[in-house]
Amino acid sequence: MTPTLGIGLIGYAFMGAAHSQAWRTAPHFFDLPLRPDLAVLAGRDPARLTAAAGKLGWRETETDWHRLLERDDIDLVDVCTPGDTHAEIAVAALEAGKHVLCEKPLANTVAEAEAMADAAAKAAARGVRSMVGFTYRRVPAIGLARQLVADGRLGEIRHVRAQYLQDWIADPAAPMSWRLEKDKAGSGALGDIGAHIVDLTQHITGQALTGVSALLETFVPERPLPASAGSLSGVGGEGTGTVTVDDAAVFLGRFTGGALGVFEATRFALGRKNAIRIEINGSRGSLAFDFEDMNVLHFFDGDDPDETAGFRRIVVTEPGHPYVSAWWPAGHGLGYEHGFTHQVVDLVTAIAQNTDPAPSFADGLQVQRVLDAVERSAGDRSTWTEIPS
Amino acid sequence: MTPTLGIGLIGYAFMGAAHSQAWRTAPHFFDLPLRPDLAVLAGRDPARLTAAAGKLGWRETETDWHRLLERDDIDLVDVCTPGDTHAEIAVAALEAGKHVLCEKPLANTVAEAEAMADAAAKAAARGVRSMVGFTYRRVPAIGLARQLVADGRLGEIRHVRAQYLQDWIADPAAPMSWRLEKDKAGSGALGDIGAHIVDLTQHITGQALTGVSALLETFVPERPLPASAGSLSGVGGEGTGTVTVDDAAVFLGRFTGGALGVFEATRFALGRKNAIRIEINGSRGSLAFDFEDMNVLHFFDGDDPDETAGFRRIVVTEPGHPYVSAWWPAGHGLGYEHGFTHQVVDLVTAIAQNTDPAPSFADGLQVQRVLDAVERSAGDRSTWTEIPS
Amino acid sequence: MTPTLGIGLIGYAFMGAAHSQAWRTAPHFFDLPLRPDLAVLAGRDPARLTAAAGKLGWRETETDWHRLLERDDIDLVDVCTPGDTHAEIAVAALEAGKHVLCEKPLANTVAEAEAMADAAAKAAARGVRSMVGFTYRRVPAIGLARQLVADGRLGEIRHVRAQYLQDWIADPAAPMSWRLEKDKAGSGALGDIGAHIVDLTQHITGQALTGVSALLETFVPERPLPASAGSLSGVGGEGTGTVTVDDAAVFLGRFTGGALGVFEATRFALGRKNAIRIEINGSRGSLAFDFEDMNVLHFFDGDDPDETAGFRRIVVTEPGHPYVSAWWPAGHGLGYEHGFTHQVVDLVTAIAQNTDPAPSFADGLQVQRVLDAVERSAGDRSTWTEIPS
Amino acid sequence: MTPTLGIGLIGYAFMGAAHSQAWRTAPHFFDLPLRPDLAVLAGRDPARLTAAAGKLGWRETETDWHRLLERDDIDLVDVCTPGDTHAEIAVAALEAGKHVLCEKPLANTVAEAEAMADAAAKAAARGVRSMVGFTYRRVPAIGLARQLVADGRLGEIRHVRAQYLQDWIADPAAPMSWRLEKDKAGSGALGDIGAHIVDLTQHITGQALTGVSALLETFVPERPLPASAGSLSGVGGEGTGTVTVDDAAVFLGRFTGGALGVFEATRFALGRKNAIRIEINGSRGSLAFDFEDMNVLHFFDGDDPDETAGFRRIVVTEPGHPYVSAWWPAGHGLGYEHGFTHQVVDLVTAIAQNTDPAPSFADGLQVQRVLDAVERSAGDRSTWTEIPS
Repeated sequence: MTPTLGIGLIGYAFMGAAHSQAWRTAPHFFDLPLRPDLAVLAGRDPARLTAAAGKLGWRETETDWHRLLERDDIDLVDVCTPGDTHAEIAVAALEAGKHVLCEKPLANTVAEAEAMADAAAKAAARGVRSMVGFTYRRVPAIGLARQLVADGRLGEIRHVRAQYLQDWIADPAAPMSWRLEKDKAGSGALGDIGAHIVDLTQHITGQALTGVSALLETFVPERPLPASAGSLSGVGGEGTGTVTVDDAAVFLGRFTGGALGVFEATRFALGRKNAIRIEINGSRGSLAFDFEDMNVLHFFDGDDPDETAGFRRIVVTEPGHPYVSAWWPAGHGLGYEHGFTHQVVDLVTAIAQNTDPAPSFADGLQVQRVLDAVERSAGDRSTWTEIPS
Repeated sequence: MTPTLGIGLIGYAFMGAAHSQAWRTAPHFFDLPLRPDLAVLAGRDPARLTAAAGKLGWRETETDWHRLLERDDIDLVDVCTPGDTHAEIAVAALEAGKHVLCEKPLANTVAEAEAMADAAAKAAARGVRSMVGFTYRRVPAIGLARQLVADGRLGEIRHVRAQYLQDWIADPAAPMSWRLEKDKAGSGALGDIGAHIVDLTQHITGQALTGVSALLETFVPERPLPASAGSLSGVGGEGTGTVTVDDAAVFLGRFTGGALGVFEATRFALGRKNAIRIEINGSRGSLAFDFEDMNVLHFFDGDDPDETAGFRRIVVTEPGHPYVSAWWPAGHGLGYEHGFTHQVVDLVTAIAQNTDPAPSFADGLQVQRVLDAVERSAGDRSTWTEIPS
Repeated sequence: MTPTLGIGLIGYAFMGAAHSQAWRTAPHFFDLPLRPDLAVLAGRDPARLTAAAGKLGWRETETDWHRLLERDDIDLVDVCTPGDTHAEIAVAALEAGKHVLCEKPLANTVAEAEAMADAAAKAAARGVRSMVGFTYRRVPAIGLARQLVADGRLGEIRHVRAQYLQDWIADPAAPMSWRLEKDKAGSGALGDIGAHIVDLTQHITGQALTGVSALLETFVPERPLPASAGSLSGVGGEGTGTVTVDDAAVFLGRFTGGALGVFEATRFALGRKNAIRIEINGSRGSLAFDFEDMNVLHFFDGDDPDETAGFRRIVVTEPGHPYVSAWWPAGHGLGYEHGFTHQVVDLVTAIAQNTDPAPSFADGLQVQRVLDAVERSAGDRSTWTEIPS
Repeated sequence: MTPTLGIGLIGYAFMGAAHSQAWRTAPHFFDLPLRPDLAVLAGRDPARLTAAAGKLGWRETETDWHRLLERDDIDLVDVCTPGDTHAEIAVAALEAGKHVLCEKPLANTVAEAEAMADAAAKAAARGVRSMVGFTYRRVPAIGLARQLVADGRLGEIRHVRAQYLQDWIADPAAPMSWRLEKDKAGSGALGDIGAHIVDLTQHITGQALTGVSALLETFVPERPLPASAGSLSGVGGEGTGTVTVDDAAVFLGRFTGGALGVFEATRFALGRKNAIRIEINGSRGSLAFDFEDMNVLHFFDGDDPDETAGFRRIVVTEPGHPYVSAWWPAGHGLGYEHGFTHQVVDLVTAIAQNTDPAPSFADGLQVQRVLDAVERSAGDRSTWTEIPS
């Protein structure tokens, strides 16, 4: 009989729904060493919490997340709250001996992230595991990309260009939200989506960014308050609120191996809904990926003769591709949510095997340091700003 | 409290797994008027059946499907067996007052399909519902395509070109399977995948095929027996078996509105894994779809001025697109299995509303008549063969 | 000093302009063994002829094409007139000892084409050369496709699918033209553009079509006369003319090696301007081409491991690709007209080397026989119709 | 009778060949007010010069370019030499009253470019015209892009991302050339190809860059000398030469209207041959272009309803598109060299109309100032560097 792993999830919005689907689905496609028990959903509003628990498949609810740390039936706390609460919850959970899965970005500040990484290191020494939720790593095409680099198929990496393009607030009439308030969200496009392309490019290349030069921009500094403005703290005035985060972030970077990086994260790329685009050029091969066509990886093999060389459009649905054999026959593609299921598989496997899952809180801290360097560079005439290792 | 709908599923291979995921997932994303109860999984091999039920989330098992018809906790029988058993099971289930969801193609012969459609009509008069599983109808991009045609955005339809391209037996060394035996599968590429493009093009255009001219081909007539040849009936000899179905089917057709159709279904299109491609040209607009990029529909609007007209690459992930609002924000695409979830949603809704779901067994019979006309034309020097309406 | 080759061109519309550009341009990029002398442009309307000769770069004019056959400074007659005049002009020119380049389709009927092929065979025995203008053969990507097949990279060919899609008369208000009259044009989409995909697929595969099953359609049988209706023969009435050719042709076919062919030629594919699409699947590899992206060939190499296999997007601008080294560095693509220049290069080279250029009039006759079989099948309930070899 | 315009061209390598084709071809497709007379080709090596003049269609030769300025049959000097000679030649030609077309980048230094712009301004006062050869402006898709922005279809511009990707020296074994020497070429990827994307994005948006933050990189600092090393100045040693220019340039920028720019120019993007990619996001629409598919412009119209909005793949071959009506029917695409022909058309027209053609030497100077700011920023820790206007 497979032993269970009791899960307590905090938050039931977009990320809460995605994580719930992953916890529910993973055991039906993968052979997990521990059976996830969707024990408790936590949140503050009792009525909405109860409705969400029913919808998302959770057995019980708690309106105070601290209760999760006291319950014996909770082995793992899954943190899907806004960034300003990550540090408090995660540190407390780890100290209470609960494994932690924490949504990205790890925290809103480097200091918070450092505290979390410290707590994670101490917890790991006691066999308590932690992971930060950079789920796009677990798109099969991204996994294949990392493998190709690790196998030397790209040779020496020279160029990394990465964009994360959305357009959901391109319209100046789009209302205020907590994601546009620095107190809640830490930063704007930078932390919300820029963090993903920082993590993905470092993950694929196996290299870290060593420095950046950056610009940040807020194109629409005032926005109408939403219908129920009361839910927003720190805003007011005559019907508009002040956007206190970046709408877009662009930056140059260097990787440890010398490659040049060019990054762009924006919520103002009209017509691009969730376009994560990564292109990497090496001395022996090149890669290109676009999340708008997520089951495909383009690979240029420099070893092919010139006359028959070309970017190969690899449909990443073969049984030999990462995670794929658990799903459908070749050509039957996966969707956005599958990355979350793969995340759960890897996390549960690591817990059962007593190994540290990746990406760790230390990885999350390192990304936070990149984001911090971007903000400092942007505030200092784009001057080159080194990233502490 | 939402009343339940007791489900009995027969079969636990590829389709069984896909249907199970749909039954499990639908209530977590959609507001269903009936709550599916994954009551019983049926199959013949007790050991494998038990393992499958555990894996796929079914509460109980039965090794004789007839038992499902006798159980009070079963309201709906979901038929995921090979085509030669569809008629017997579905007719018996309908007569026993169970709603039926039956995988496509509806049957292996027109006669069987007629019997099933008759049984379905009689059952409907008693409030018992039936549906055939052409799930690709429920890919959001296909739903949008149908809407655009229905709204007149294509004008008069003139051309329909449709291909279903796979390559899983392109290698002559690929072994025999029941899908290559006429007794079991009815036909080869024609019924397995050709049926889908016949249904999809008729569904999108709202028109039926009136006649066809066809060629069938078996490129590799002898194949090695699989490791455990015992499971194959009717084959033998010195380690090879005879393929008794088509490897590929190509045919021309006419639609009721006068449009020309060109169809191609093959398992020998090396490099194409599951490429369902549909292109439709009308007097006012055109559409193009490829399942290899399933979250996208290309639409040419003939009303646009020449200088700015072009096929629009619509990412079909907006809240206003069919089924999408239940899932993720724009740009976060769906995968293959979501069509099955949407199928369950529509079926459960129809049952609760006492309406007949589509596609009906009569729709499945009509597709069967098209397939039959294709076979007859191919056997008669490609002569034009009309399809009875 | 390079000897000259005196050219007489008949016709100065679309094809006349394209051929003129080729004759002018070829010697500046290729090392030709004979220097083309743009000696005489022939046409019936003196005023327009003179203007055209000035614009297109011809030294002299003749209003009677017979004069070309008498002039000593004319070595080659280039026939760019409507199809109903090809046979008379070409046969007379060959008999007069002039080399002939004749636009496609070779003729309007099989009988005419046979007479032309006979004349060409007799002329060849006297060292007089002839060629039919299937220029798309000389797009570098098509040349590469043929090489890959010839090198065995596709293995045994199983599927050929080819479409030539245009939309210039999709609007029923588009006026009558000689291209819509059977007397002038022979056929409609079938001969005008269908001929190209018949030739291209036979050329690439190195195989001939052995039989067809077909449908033809005229979607818009009556059209308004153009402003100057007098230039149209055989039409009249109250302001409209009758279209006497096909608007679209669809057909199935078989190649000598057993491959299945699916063909579609139409002028009603709204939004497709000049989309020549060819896809070929073999036992070892596959190819895909679309003239809308003419500098690219997609090649799937079945020898690649599954995990890194995918259609390679080959940008056919490498020095090792056909014709390319004469032009620009890699990545600097060619356009539509370059095929005509390559045609001139190959023709002049063959003449200088006393070899027969390809495609020959016999090749043109064979294509004509395919078109004829298509028309006969379409007129006989799509019945399979063999093509005489 | 159309008056002539006597042309003297200096240089007969890549650019000399492209310009020659343009001068030869323009009058055959466009109605030019002046007839170009390909009078004199100038170069230093008599033997190669004579051969080139024959091949490229020039009537006479001069081994000393100063002679062009003295000849009465030369009205225009076309400068296709390396960048270190542009200033001397162009200034002298303008002072001699000759119109000047000068290849890009305008010069190797800002000082040289300033002298040229001064000379051009003085010459313009005397009716002598000058133009710098940013030919990509004259790709029809680029012309359409500029029109859409000018018509307000993009609204307020927020993002500009531009890449010029090549790979011709990605291999460290590729030999030295003058393009890798700072004395000759001024800079590397920055001036050779980066200059194009600076000009194109400013041209399309109608806005100028106001500042930049940059990184430059030389991945391969030592390269083998070519077979005939004697032709290289300033290099030597044991068979290798030192690369003194950048291999790649990446920079951030701001446009006058506030848009963020992200630029990348490299010769190390393995698999990308001549990929000029430009994407622009505005408040009302977006554009995307890739020179690898040069006859296509992608346009997202934010005014379309969400359900049918998508990037339109506009095939820029309609008669209403810039320059197209002179060429072929819709769908018959143009190639790389056509931009040069359009350049000649616009230049000759401006000369005949006594207007100043664009881009002017002042425009070329402004681009030079951007390149200079990039180099200064890269040399000063990527610090934000303003561009003098």
